[in-house]
Amino acid sequence: MNGVLRIGLIGMGRIGKLHGSNLQSLVKGAEIVCAADLYLDEDKERWAKSVGIARCSRDPEDIFEDPDIDAVFICSSTDTHADFIVRAAKAGKNIFCEKPIAVNVSDINRSLRAVEKAGVKLQVGFVRRFDKSHKAVHDAAASGKIGKVYVVKVCSRDPEAPPMSYVEKSGGIFMDMMIHDFDMVRYLSGSEVTEVYAAGGCLVDSHFADYGDVDTAIVTLRFENGALGVIDNCRQAPYGYDQRVEVHGEKGCVRDENQLEDEARLATASGTLGAKPTWFFLERYNDAFVEEERAFVKACLSDAPVPVGGKDGLKAVLIAKAARKSLETGRPVRLDDPDVTSD
Amino acid sequence: MNGVLRIGLIGMGRIGKLHGSNLQSLVKGAEIVCAADLYLDEDKERWAKSVGIARCSRDPEDIFEDPDIDAVFICSSTDTHADFIVRAAKAGKNIFCEKPIAVNVSDINRSLRAVEKAGVKLQVGFVRRFDKSHKAVHDAAASGKIGKVYVVKVCSRDPEAPPMSYVEKSGGIFMDMMIHDFDMVRYLSGSEVTEVYAAGGCLVDSHFADYGDVDTAIVTLRFENGALGVIDNCRQAPYGYDQRVEVHGEKGCVRDENQLEDEARLATASGTLGAKPTWFFLERYNDAFVEEERAFVKACLSDAPVPVGGKDGLKAVLIAKAARKSLETGRPVRLDDPDVTSD
Amino acid sequence: MNGVLRIGLIGMGRIGKLHGSNLQSLVKGAEIVCAADLYLDEDKERWAKSVGIARCSRDPEDIFEDPDIDAVFICSSTDTHADFIVRAAKAGKNIFCEKPIAVNVSDINRSLRAVEKAGVKLQVGFVRRFDKSHKAVHDAAASGKIGKVYVVKVCSRDPEAPPMSYVEKSGGIFMDMMIHDFDMVRYLSGSEVTEVYAAGGCLVDSHFADYGDVDTAIVTLRFENGALGVIDNCRQAPYGYDQRVEVHGEKGCVRDENQLEDEARLATASGTLGAKPTWFFLERYNDAFVEEERAFVKACLSDAPVPVGGKDGLKAVLIAKAARKSLETGRPVRLDDPDVTSD
Amino acid sequence: MNGVLRIGLIGMGRIGKLHGSNLQSLVKGAEIVCAADLYLDEDKERWAKSVGIARCSRDPEDIFEDPDIDAVFICSSTDTHADFIVRAAKAGKNIFCEKPIAVNVSDINRSLRAVEKAGVKLQVGFVRRFDKSHKAVHDAAASGKIGKVYVVKVCSRDPEAPPMSYVEKSGGIFMDMMIHDFDMVRYLSGSEVTEVYAAGGCLVDSHFADYGDVDTAIVTLRFENGALGVIDNCRQAPYGYDQRVEVHGEKGCVRDENQLEDEARLATASGTLGAKPTWFFLERYNDAFVEEERAFVKACLSDAPVPVGGKDGLKAVLIAKAARKSLETGRPVRLDDPDVTSD
Repeated sequence: MNGVLRIGLIGMGRIGKLHGSNLQSLVKGAEIVCAADLYLDEDKERWAKSVGIARCSRDPEDIFEDPDIDAVFICSSTDTHADFIVRAAKAGKNIFCEKPIAVNVSDINRSLRAVEKAGVKLQVGFVRRFDKSHKAVHDAAASGKIGKVYVVKVCSRDPEAPPMSYVEKSGGIFMDMMIHDFDMVRYLSGSEVTEVYAAGGCLVDSHFADYGDVDTAIVTLRFENGALGVIDNCRQAPYGYDQRVEVHGEKGCVRDENQLEDEARLATASGTLGAKPTWFFLERYNDAFVEEERAFVKACLSDAPVPVGGKDGLKAVLIAKAARKSLETGRPVRLDDPDVTSD
Repeated sequence: MNGVLRIGLIGMGRIGKLHGSNLQSLVKGAEIVCAADLYLDEDKERWAKSVGIARCSRDPEDIFEDPDIDAVFICSSTDTHADFIVRAAKAGKNIFCEKPIAVNVSDINRSLRAVEKAGVKLQVGFVRRFDKSHKAVHDAAASGKIGKVYVVKVCSRDPEAPPMSYVEKSGGIFMDMMIHDFDMVRYLSGSEVTEVYAAGGCLVDSHFADYGDVDTAIVTLRFENGALGVIDNCRQAPYGYDQRVEVHGEKGCVRDENQLEDEARLATASGTLGAKPTWFFLERYNDAFVEEERAFVKACLSDAPVPVGGKDGLKAVLIAKAARKSLETGRPVRLDDPDVTSD
Repeated sequence: MNGVLRIGLIGMGRIGKLHGSNLQSLVKGAEIVCAADLYLDEDKERWAKSVGIARCSRDPEDIFEDPDIDAVFICSSTDTHADFIVRAAKAGKNIFCEKPIAVNVSDINRSLRAVEKAGVKLQVGFVRRFDKSHKAVHDAAASGKIGKVYVVKVCSRDPEAPPMSYVEKSGGIFMDMMIHDFDMVRYLSGSEVTEVYAAGGCLVDSHFADYGDVDTAIVTLRFENGALGVIDNCRQAPYGYDQRVEVHGEKGCVRDENQLEDEARLATASGTLGAKPTWFFLERYNDAFVEEERAFVKACLSDAPVPVGGKDGLKAVLIAKAARKSLETGRPVRLDDPDVTSD
Repeated sequence: MNGVLRIGLIGMGRIGKLHGSNLQSLVKGAEIVCAADLYLDEDKERWAKSVGIARCSRDPEDIFEDPDIDAVFICSSTDTHADFIVRAAKAGKNIFCEKPIAVNVSDINRSLRAVEKAGVKLQVGFVRRFDKSHKAVHDAAASGKIGKVYVVKVCSRDPEAPPMSYVEKSGGIFMDMMIHDFDMVRYLSGSEVTEVYAAGGCLVDSHFADYGDVDTAIVTLRFENGALGVIDNCRQAPYGYDQRVEVHGEKGCVRDENQLEDEARLATASGTLGAKPTWFFLERYNDAFVEEERAFVKACLSDAPVPVGGKDGLKAVLIAKAARKSLETGRPVRLDDPDVTSD
């Protein structure tokens, strides 16, 4: 590596294009030399050209087999992640993989083993850790400004529910949506979750129940260090993407507010009207995606550890599985419950 | 009643003096004609005189037996509440009673029966309903501005822990502190709690455990209307009294922020520094106490229902009992659990 | 004086009743023993009785001549202030006088001379100095937290314009409304004004011009210490009473925001709607009036200097006169301009 | 033009590189085909290559004479702007020119005449109009939400003073710094300035006086429609780049707050500490530069008017000249003053 990380992009759907555009135009030291997509079409080829990606392919092997490629961005569908990670690891390439690594534990474990064996890097796409506000909360807590951590709270509500066609395959609210928050509470508390209790309901749309899912959930968590946590999710918050975190400790509390579309306020006889939060994750975490990519590129070029690794990807999935079982049984579930740690 | 409510004040401790001073100077239509305290002393007599209370007594019977007294404020210790309510009801007097009515269900029930039989009014001192910010949140939700209610959240954290001598007799965090929040979630959701799950720990001070208590707790609640709720309490929030509520619904969210000591902000190279929240309940709910008293006096003078009644007092205690059992068993507990509904 | 300041209240109009009620119920150590009003009527007598004032009179001499009265609150019409100050001073009574002392310099000067000669105290009713937010701004600046002061800004806008019958006799926007802000910039800058430039217009209602007045004005000020200042006033701000101050200095800036009716915020698809500022000065400066009265009573009882004295009353009037001349001439006017310092 | 605007970039200093990078990576439909700089060096050539600019030159004529170039971005030093505008106009190219067009009126006028004669577009770089918060304030006012405009206020303070070597040639605070705010008040008020009064001083650093300049200034403005305005500038605000605007009108007020580095708040016993404003114009107006460039490219490709034209460039310079004369004479100065309208 000579100061430029030569990247192969796998998957040119929405998230693949996002990473691709950012890497080409905003991330110094990154260069995508090939983009592969099993469903390559004219639209994807046109996009690739527009961002200066010289080569396109239908076959990821064209990336894995290319000795000039240093790293891969795995942005294909979740069910392909584990195989691609294993393949990329064998090929000696550093790996950025979108979350989740997989939805079953055995696939995650074989991915992590392959990565370890190959001695390559694996960064998992928990993008919210790179949001400047969440990061500032983390940094204040991690640097001891609030002393010992007592409680972590995460409010995470989407502006609009996904279509039912998505819900059907999403893996459920804990695996698909709250998984970000499970990572967030680990990030903010600096400790591991030991037990969860989940309460949920179909308040937005009863059709979620048709897929065994809920649209609203509150999960209470216990941490190894004794701290407590709580996360609330809702699939539909019509006032906008609600993304707030709080950490309470012995010396104080650090929390953040939503990022608004603008800072203007209209004061009339009706009150003072401010802007809505930035619409959804593409807007709110726009800058965070770039920071995430920069962190990966920097870790590869400087041979430093990645900031979010395979273990983080595993832990979030385990918590999601425990939350699922808790919802189904109506009881708290420990993370070492055999139903959680096995597939 | 001729436009003035003649009141007998029972109990001249901190809360009794607070109600007494307010009633005498800030509540139109109220007049305390006698103040009784089992432990009457010179200091209490001096205070009574300073606020214009003409008569003092060691014996509450002097109040109950006085046909010129229309209503009583029961501000004595919790263990006396039920007997005084029963006695006042029999005497035909309207009753304001500080919370809780009692810590066991049978005492509450005999109080409510006596009140019902006598046809008098009973208002319970859930003062937070009269806070202008919490009330504005309630009013927005109750008037349909956020549509169907999905989730209610209450963050309620005291600035400093009470002395262990108090903890010993407090009845525990749920009965002593979170009871206000149990009432608040009923007020905000417009629905009854059906099940609770409580997680807690001694994070502030391990001595709470000596009394079987916790200092930090998160309680998840389910409501009859399908909504979910969550309350977090901590005995010590060194940044100040943290009192925030949120209601999320199908059309939006209404929430409040803490009331600060002042609205000044100092911007320097270190950032922007604002004031702390008003210190504790006497400061934060200073105006709410007056509104609470006005509401009682108005209800008595106009023969309208009181805004917070005996049933509200009972329900909050039942939720507290369920939360206690949940903490002890590590399981969710229904409100109709026999351990909850019996003493 | 034996720990209680015996007060004579002169004038039972709106502001007189406000001071009177506060002094009787909220200011420890204060006791109004007589209230006088040239236009005493049943309503005023009823009010006096309701707040526990034993004696009423049509003749202020009943107050001045009463050797048991320690201090007077002059709340009568502006044109009577100077004579009453002189009379009270001769009678050896400490004086609280509502602003302005007078609208012409000679009346102010003879008032101040009488006060000085008698060795009594004179506090002028610049109530905003006692607002907790403005005071916090002042305290931060005065204690050096922003270093040398560069610029002071005051935004002061009334929610609704007074009736034209009031405008006719008000003395104009500078003497009637901005006079509070002239005192505020002196308070915040810690320096004396040397020159002003006033721009104004009739934007709200052209009828202000009928009385030679404007309804909107911006005044730029220069201070002895080199700092600059700016004040903007408007007679009508339909979104509520807008009262914000800023002080900029070499190390930072301290400013305040309006006090809102409550801290609730309603977030919907339309944005986030917060409450309006507290309506007008009676609401916004409600607590400040009490603090002002307490400060006077404390100064009298402890024989300490009053926090806002006669010189402050004079200075604000001189600035108002200079602003008036600037508006009329379209030129900056110095405070030592003979038209300013003479009547 | 076939959907792509072929651009020649003139000047590769800080602002030229900023526009260049944005145009290449973030502005759809833009393509820089040549970049010219009188002082071309290796660093500039390297930069050009890194953003995909194929051709570099020392001679702007290589751009003007190239028939394949549709538009130019003039980012060279101010003294070259007028000549380059005239030359580009003659060559039939659309023009984006950084502010100011020139510091003397005759140069501006000959630029505007050349542009008009050639029928090309000229957009002037008043980037703040494209800031999302300022724009939201403008849009609310322009759409009538606050009714008739009464007062416009702009607070604009730089985080740190420029070096004296810059001050020497800057043209003074009004031409160099406040010129943005002069454009802003025209933008927000929807009206033309008729008279200004400027007060200023050297509060930050007495060395500004060595160059006949001030470091702190307050300018009061009158508008054709009767509205009033005020701008305050300071060369050094150590708490960060302070960029706030307010518009007051008959129905309300719309204003904005600074954009902060993040939305985290740390609450401890010392108060609540939030982040500083984003550091300086490159950070605060980062997105606005892109919006500005997009607006120009869109206007060129769709043959629509540019949002900020040559007249806007002229007007801001005239106001700056009037402010300068006011500061020197201590008197208000009209915009039609011969000293303002002539060189």
